[in-house]
Amino acid sequence: MKLKTLVLSPQSRLDEVCSEDCRARLYEYFEPVWNETGRDYIQEELSALVADAEAIITSWGSPGLTDEMLEKAVKLRVIGHAAGTVKNLVPKQIFSRGIKVFSAAPRIAQSVGEYCLAALLASLRFLPAFDSSMREGKWKIAGMKGSELTGSTVGIISASSTARAFIKLLAPFQVNVLIYDPYLTEEGAARLNARKAALEEVMSCPIISVHAPKLPATERMLTRDLLALIPDGAVFINSSRDPVVDEQAFMEELQSGRFFAALDVFEKEPLAAEHPIRSLPNVLLTPHIAGASVQGHLALMGEVVEDIIRSQRGEKTAYEVTEKMWEVMA
Amino acid sequence: MKLKTLVLSPQSRLDEVCSEDCRARLYEYFEPVWNETGRDYIQEELSALVADAEAIITSWGSPGLTDEMLEKAVKLRVIGHAAGTVKNLVPKQIFSRGIKVFSAAPRIAQSVGEYCLAALLASLRFLPAFDSSMREGKWKIAGMKGSELTGSTVGIISASSTARAFIKLLAPFQVNVLIYDPYLTEEGAARLNARKAALEEVMSCPIISVHAPKLPATERMLTRDLLALIPDGAVFINSSRDPVVDEQAFMEELQSGRFFAALDVFEKEPLAAEHPIRSLPNVLLTPHIAGASVQGHLALMGEVVEDIIRSQRGEKTAYEVTEKMWEVMA
Repeated sequence: MKLKTLVLSPQSRLDEVCSEDCRARLYEYFEPVWNETGRDYIQEELSALVADAEAIITSWGSPGLTDEMLEKAVKLRVIGHAAGTVKNLVPKQIFSRGIKVFSAAPRIAQSVGEYCLAALLASLRFLPAFDSSMREGKWKIAGMKGSELTGSTVGIISASSTARAFIKLLAPFQVNVLIYDPYLTEEGAARLNARKAALEEVMSCPIISVHAPKLPATERMLTRDLLALIPDGAVFINSSRDPVVDEQAFMEELQSGRFFAALDVFEKEPLAAEHPIRSLPNVLLTPHIAGASVQGHLALMGEVVEDIIRSQRGEKTAYEVTEKMWEVMA
Repeated sequence: MKLKTLVLSPQSRLDEVCSEDCRARLYEYFEPVWNETGRDYIQEELSALVADAEAIITSWGSPGLTDEMLEKAVKLRVIGHAAGTVKNLVPKQIFSRGIKVFSAAPRIAQSVGEYCLAALLASLRFLPAFDSSMREGKWKIAGMKGSELTGSTVGIISASSTARAFIKLLAPFQVNVLIYDPYLTEEGAARLNARKAALEEVMSCPIISVHAPKLPATERMLTRDLLALIPDGAVFINSSRDPVVDEQAFMEELQSGRFFAALDVFEKEPLAAEHPIRSLPNVLLTPHIAGASVQGHLALMGEVVEDIIRSQRGEKTAYEVTEKMWEVMA
């Protein structure tokens, strides 16, 4: 019996996240209901379709599923989200309804991991500054010599999936990896070829990468005192969430110019056009694109669909979201 | 018996390449003759010192040792170059004089390897373009989505030490590595977890990195026809020598905008201030800094000194330059 599966990705973004292979798998194992209206569903259409669905596939821009909608969705057994967090997609009550939830967040982590290494190496070697200077007609810049990553020490804040993806890519550089994460055991850290450390120790590393989720417990966890520990000449990377950092204290530290920061996330996004951070020389700025890549996006729906197939066969799954995971999701 | 060792690095750059550890090792195992004049030697001083030296340590900016000078240097047994190529430092005849030659070129390769990965990842994710655009007050850029490296195919031209250093860093990305190198065996390629390939095949890869030395045989080896094989959307990296590329044909290909290039080397250096390449959007430009890093430079003299110590003890060396190597050196 193939599950009647409502594909709810907004039309404008469907081709970005659903590959030809994914479509084929959906036809092979499910009874997909595509939106063929040429526009997004209006509320009445949506309610009727959800009430009739056995499975729902969502992605960025999909409408949130309220508890009210779920109450009528008596046939619904599984939701697969071809994107990251499901915090705003499904209410916590979904778990008590016996509906399984899957999210492709770990697949996005791979792109974030690559972004972190890209940003780190580009920062260590001043690539954006050299490129700008070359475009201004210059050649070498006195006193500007890059640093090697090999043999350095990398401090990681939170052993999230993005942190794990980043750490994997560090393997050939023979770096020492220190992780601060209250939920990580020493054995868990050792399995990542890392060592569990206090937040103070991590903030004192020459390379620091923030991977903490946005939670009440992580809000402004990087206080003024902790930010003051960042060593001169360090590279600080934030690809997680800005509210983790005390923004004003961070801005003051950055303006001193004593370390370099690669920042993909900001307190308010889009970042204000006139924000003073935009003109600092010691930053590499990107517009929240750490998780965005052509290959990463195109794989999302397929990864979730495969995981649901595994689940139906009683095999081990990779992307299932439990109630406990939902609680600590960004 | 400690060898009387003339340290010939120009005064202005000695501290860049000679660490405290290196100094200590020189005192421990050699009888170092430091330049304490507060200036570089004049020709007469230099000739007298070379004639009396049992070992000579050189670096960037050291005077070349002519066959005439070497003829008088009857005690000289070893030259250690705390930099890259020794092609312009010692004449080929040095090898028939029984003088051993060491070069720290393989240590520089580590920094070049890191540069190649930095330039590749930064190019794949458009980091310099995003950073510039952020500095102009913008946020996301429509249609600009980066690519992942994981699972891609990387074509390498010449299995030089810089290529090997780069390939090592690619390990976690599970890429297919194809190498063109007429001197590489299939077994040699397999030891690098790579496959030997024709130059045409390498030039058709979505990622191409040039590591060929500057030799008569490599001059303009990347012809117009070969450059035309570069796929649309590819990333082409040149950290070796520009004369390897047919410059005019390359410029025409670049101006079409159909692929991206990360370029650290140019036909004429410094690159002309008004060179049209400086204003292309599809390039990442750096001023011949691929091999330059603080840690890499500071390690150079120490690495060469250690290798000479190993040689004196009859142990396996890592940096000795043979006559055959001298011939194919850049």
